[in-house]
Amino acid sequence: MIDIMKNRRTIRKYTEQDIPEELLNELLEVAVRASNTGNMQLYSVVVTRDQSNKEKLAPAHFNQPMITTAPVVLTFCADANRFVKWAEQRKAEAGFDNLQTFIASTIDAMLFAQAFCDAAEENGLGICYLGTTAYNADKIIEALSLPRLVVPIVTVTVGYPAMPLPEQVERLPLAAVIHQEAYVDYTPDMIDELYGEKEALEVNKQFVKENNKETLAQVFTDVRYTKKNNEYFSEVLLKVLKDQGFMK
Amino acid sequence: MIDIMKNRRTIRKYTEQDIPEELLNELLEVAVRASNTGNMQLYSVVVTRDQSNKEKLAPAHFNQPMITTAPVVLTFCADANRFVKWAEQRKAEAGFDNLQTFIASTIDAMLFAQAFCDAAEENGLGICYLGTTAYNADKIIEALSLPRLVVPIVTVTVGYPAMPLPEQVERLPLAAVIHQEAYVDYTPDMIDELYGEKEALEVNKQFVKENNKETLAQVFTDVRYTKKNNEYFSEVLLKVLKDQGFMK
Repeated sequence: MIDIMKNRRTIRKYTEQDIPEELLNELLEVAVRASNTGNMQLYSVVVTRDQSNKEKLAPAHFNQPMITTAPVVLTFCADANRFVKWAEQRKAEAGFDNLQTFIASTIDAMLFAQAFCDAAEENGLGICYLGTTAYNADKIIEALSLPRLVVPIVTVTVGYPAMPLPEQVERLPLAAVIHQEAYVDYTPDMIDELYGEKEALEVNKQFVKENNKETLAQVFTDVRYTKKNNEYFSEVLLKVLKDQGFMK
Repeated sequence: MIDIMKNRRTIRKYTEQDIPEELLNELLEVAVRASNTGNMQLYSVVVTRDQSNKEKLAPAHFNQPMITTAPVVLTFCADANRFVKWAEQRKAEAGFDNLQTFIASTIDAMLFAQAFCDAAEENGLGICYLGTTAYNADKIIEALSLPRLVVPIVTVTVGYPAMPLPEQVERLPLAAVIHQEAYVDYTPDMIDELYGEKEALEVNKQFVKENNKETLAQVFTDVRYTKKNNEYFSEVLLKVLKDQGFMK
């Protein structure tokens, strides 16, 4: 398994082969064993297989093709609704309409999602995470009929990998993400050293050129994750958290 | 691997055996291959091995004994600081001081953490997640010297499991967490059915009795995750997000 994890890559192109419901459920059953907050399991997953439902979801994911071409689309949600319904039915008053519960539910949903992905890849499936979910949570809430206290966090497309597999993409050296005993903030020299390899890659130099930018960092800040978009989608998300009842 | 994941349980008691740095780094190296937002790797992990540093962290985790008895304590953080420092050094203006970036970083940190845990368990280690991190993020920020744009999300204690292993705890039936095509909200009958097995377990009946409660749900809402605490720690967290620069 370690080798599979080490050699993994995000898969955006899938074969026509469907995923049997039995296999999908077995992988989700395995993922349910992941840790969660106080064993309250504050998460849900919506399974989309129907083509017309995938097409309904696609615009919320900026029409990335994986949504309509993957056999299975999974929307992982922070979900305090089920727990609160249970509590109400058992003479218990749950004070779960707040930010802390939203974060706990988000953590639960993410551990569940990643355990699913690790198990799926071990079984020869390929996955792609879509971060667009938190951007367009309002549209996804509508498409999937998510009630109060449920917020979609990430979407994962799943299928059998089409050949040839894509190249594995780079990562920063491990030293970039580890701090021993306490956080040692990055000096200019450390930044140069840690990002040097990434910046020197031909594929990344190509991105800089294609986007008419001076540096690779500018591709991220001016094209992919702009201040304007980040701020706009932060407002959308804050409104979603209020509307879904998590910002009492 | 699927069998290991299926049979996993949280490990709170560890042997004296230390975790070699080489093994720990190999597992973190594997975890770095997990998906992340736009390959920006908006996360960091702080490794605590020093006993006096564990004791400094312990109160923030309500003195749960795993902190001081595990050979290794890992604090997984949402981290936009490294990326922003890189951007500033490369004439790029990063608009990352907002809620959307905080959520993206939290997702990145969680996928990294869970991939680490899956790899660690595959190698015979035992882990325990501590949700106290998001409660007392302010104290942990101080203990670990976390700078602006870094927020601790979860802590994982790691070590070799002491025998005998604890019993595996229950989970809701898979049907409780899956929705096909759209969210179908829970009716009172569904709640009764989905929570029936959990409530009938001897160990859970014992919790109800010990806590002098009428229902299992009340143990959660009146003792473990009270409205008062949830609301207090929500305020702390919101202040942390502002202080760390994520709520522009």
